[in-house]
Amino acid sequence: MTYCLSLLCREGIVFLSDTRTSAGAENLKVHSKMRIYDRPGDRLLCLLSAGNLSVTQTVCSFVEEDLAAGEGDAGQENLLNQQSLFTSARYVGNVIRRVAALDRTALLADGIGFDCNMILGGQIAGKRPQIFHIYPQGNSIHASPSAPFLQIGETKYGKPILDRGFTYETGLAEGVKYGLISMDATLKSNVSVGTPVEVLCYRTDTLTAGKHVWIEDRDPYLSDLRDRWHKGVISLVQEIPVPRWAGQ
Amino acid sequence: MTYCLSLLCREGIVFLSDTRTSAGAENLKVHSKMRIYDRPGDRLLCLLSAGNLSVTQTVCSFVEEDLAAGEGDAGQENLLNQQSLFTSARYVGNVIRRVAALDRTALLADGIGFDCNMILGGQIAGKRPQIFHIYPQGNSIHASPSAPFLQIGETKYGKPILDRGFTYETGLAEGVKYGLISMDATLKSNVSVGTPVEVLCYRTDTLTAGKHVWIEDRDPYLSDLRDRWHKGVISLVQEIPVPRWAGQ
Repeated sequence: MTYCLSLLCREGIVFLSDTRTSAGAENLKVHSKMRIYDRPGDRLLCLLSAGNLSVTQTVCSFVEEDLAAGEGDAGQENLLNQQSLFTSARYVGNVIRRVAALDRTALLADGIGFDCNMILGGQIAGKRPQIFHIYPQGNSIHASPSAPFLQIGETKYGKPILDRGFTYETGLAEGVKYGLISMDATLKSNVSVGTPVEVLCYRTDTLTAGKHVWIEDRDPYLSDLRDRWHKGVISLVQEIPVPRWAGQ
Repeated sequence: MTYCLSLLCREGIVFLSDTRTSAGAENLKVHSKMRIYDRPGDRLLCLLSAGNLSVTQTVCSFVEEDLAAGEGDAGQENLLNQQSLFTSARYVGNVIRRVAALDRTALLADGIGFDCNMILGGQIAGKRPQIFHIYPQGNSIHASPSAPFLQIGETKYGKPILDRGFTYETGLAEGVKYGLISMDATLKSNVSVGTPVEVLCYRTDTLTAGKHVWIEDRDPYLSDLRDRWHKGVISLVQEIPVPRWAGQ
């Protein structure tokens, strides 16, 4: 299972992903689900992926082959020569359709879903930062100030804290904390989502990758955040009065 | 959608359910999903239901017809004349199978799943309190001190807080708070789960229904709990230091 998350705020975008790709008892593998593409000063794009590893890797292989082909041929459409983030998301959707045309029938024939959800976000010079969720069918939706985050994979355990406190006006560094708490809730309730956690913290108008970190399970900051959150939540419950009708 | 929850602790059992049965835009109905059956001094049983309303109502109608038949005929097997909670749960599973034999084929033919999950819990004199999750296939599992809660319906949003703080050693009144916070997380993240919330608070060895309350959306206690939780969680995030790498 996978959990990837992108938080859009006025100050920028936070991208987070777990790294567990197979949670069979003897098959725990660590794979990055975050790919960063930038042309500093012109654009920064980050692509998060959830689903069947073969499908998502095939999509990314095509994206990267198109980029390589684009170096020799300016006419070759690729992820980094689109006019807007909207057309970049449509481009990724078209690559997903290319993979569907190749593999979907064979997968479905064996009862394997064509499972591929992606988040693409970032900024292109002169435009505002945006994030998109691209579906297995190739279509997409984007976030907005009133619906400022997108999730793929195991999304539910980590949603309550975001619904509770994260808004478009939340600061970028505060957004990192919300993202890590959302990730931690998911790690705790679903053992098939696992550390390390990868985080990209993009600040609006910097047009370059910014802070990209890989946080191990025993990372002192992550441990401290988890510990404060765990103890804090339990104290909060204790401080709430007992309902009269449930008293001794 | 539905969310029902049962929390087993040394001091007793908390049962909670929402009451929304249809969340189509013009079709919000309130139906109880909690049924309480007791013979004070001998046994207390509580049955929570999630799934297709026709299926769950048909199951409960058969349960109640068997009870009525049992009044005239002591040999008639019913929910209140079982030897143990285990056989009570098997009995409910058999009633689900009776309904499946009647309706499952017709439902599946129109693409409607035979959706029926139930929680049965309580206590029989001389035995310990127990809770069971009964599946649409009629089989069941029970909770235990190391896995002390069961959920049916929209279960994920409300799971993190339980994983975080509720244990078999949590007090009964504290359990009510955990249950209401879990319910509130679900109400907030899924609009198709709705108030009023029904709660039954059963204390071990009382062998009678105990505190059974129906909590409206504007109930002062629920409003206060929600407000304290909401503000408390946001303050907790604010108090966590920002990671060095995400600073200004």
